[in-house]
Amino acid sequence: MGDNVRLIEVKENVLDDNDKVAKELRARLKQEKTFLVNLMASPGAGKTSTVIQTVRRLGETLSIGVLEADIDSMVDAEKVAETGVTAVQMRTGGFCHLDATMVTDGLSAIGSENFDLIILENVGNLVCPAEFDTGSAVNVMVLSVPEGDDKPLKYPLMFSVCDVVLINKIDTCELFDFDRKRFEEGVRKVNPNCTLFDISCRTGEGLDAWADWLKEQVKTHNN
Amino acid sequence: MGDNVRLIEVKENVLDDNDKVAKELRARLKQEKTFLVNLMASPGAGKTSTVIQTVRRLGETLSIGVLEADIDSMVDAEKVAETGVTAVQMRTGGFCHLDATMVTDGLSAIGSENFDLIILENVGNLVCPAEFDTGSAVNVMVLSVPEGDDKPLKYPLMFSVCDVVLINKIDTCELFDFDRKRFEEGVRKVNPNCTLFDISCRTGEGLDAWADWLKEQVKTHNN
Repeated sequence: MGDNVRLIEVKENVLDDNDKVAKELRARLKQEKTFLVNLMASPGAGKTSTVIQTVRRLGETLSIGVLEADIDSMVDAEKVAETGVTAVQMRTGGFCHLDATMVTDGLSAIGSENFDLIILENVGNLVCPAEFDTGSAVNVMVLSVPEGDDKPLKYPLMFSVCDVVLINKIDTCELFDFDRKRFEEGVRKVNPNCTLFDISCRTGEGLDAWADWLKEQVKTHNN
Repeated sequence: MGDNVRLIEVKENVLDDNDKVAKELRARLKQEKTFLVNLMASPGAGKTSTVIQTVRRLGETLSIGVLEADIDSMVDAEKVAETGVTAVQMRTGGFCHLDATMVTDGLSAIGSENFDLIILENVGNLVCPAEFDTGSAVNVMVLSVPEGDDKPLKYPLMFSVCDVVLINKIDTCELFDFDRKRFEEGVRKVNPNCTLFDISCRTGEGLDAWADWLKEQVKTHNN
């Protein structure tokens, strides 16, 4: 394991009101000039690949830290740390989502005040993470084309809490008969103001546009 | 909506011990000569397609009923009912998994005693459903190739509670750089006795072998 990666255990906070903890965390991060992105998706949609591609595009202009949530392994943090950024693996011990207290613990472990941008990779799950405000400045979800264009209909809460949807593996639309228009209509139905980017972590398509958008958000937030 | 499809609302049982309810349900289904399959997977892995393909192969020799769990929509039950089988959509109202009490309610709604085989499509989620015994005779999970070959490492509980893993979208291994051997090693590490089938609901590959296996299990259980 490299010097820039470590593991912490995180536990659910059952005593405090999560919304209150999240709100306080968001105010603190605004003061610290640290922009927190909460990245959510199904297992295998491409969260870690998106983190790596984002770091590659913004790592020279912004100081970036990565918090990786995982139930039981360290593979994601190790993969991400290979890019040179600091990564902390938050092991949830079977837990299905992150709450704002777990995220606060993760931010302390990484030393959030030292970073312009922190990317938080949530647990791979389209249900539970949507119910818990993490204190992030934006919620971003990755939907991969092989999952199908009907997902907004089936996981409406997740799509309604997102500020951005990254449509990953966009190069496989034809193979999986993915109707891009139908998908966007489904998203707009539950979340009219959501921003969409078509990306492919494999071919590189669309990643510059997403990274540029994110850089602008970080700049506005941290100034 | 056709005559063979209906919707019920299901609620979590917070009072009774789920393991006890599940054990009683399993005993009852054995007596009823009804084989219950609990089908679990990530969103978009191909659960509904697998149900449809299975019904097409076994619908003439077995009487089949389908219970579809979904957070908020009816699309899966309607899609499945088009094959002619009876389907009940169990709406969980945002809940992330099924417990044995919800399944008992679903089985009452469909009239389980009238069926040789009932396929239960659980909520699309690799975390929470693995923690709750549904009373099924077997647990089957669908892992789709685009999700990646590292999933057993990251969702060990799900892979450890499965009797069968169906590797769906097997025709896309090359495109997604999916190492079939590495995946199987990962599965075997947490679950040495698991049965694996390579399938593609798109091309039809491997589905006869899976259906034959299932038919044998139903025959043994119901005799």
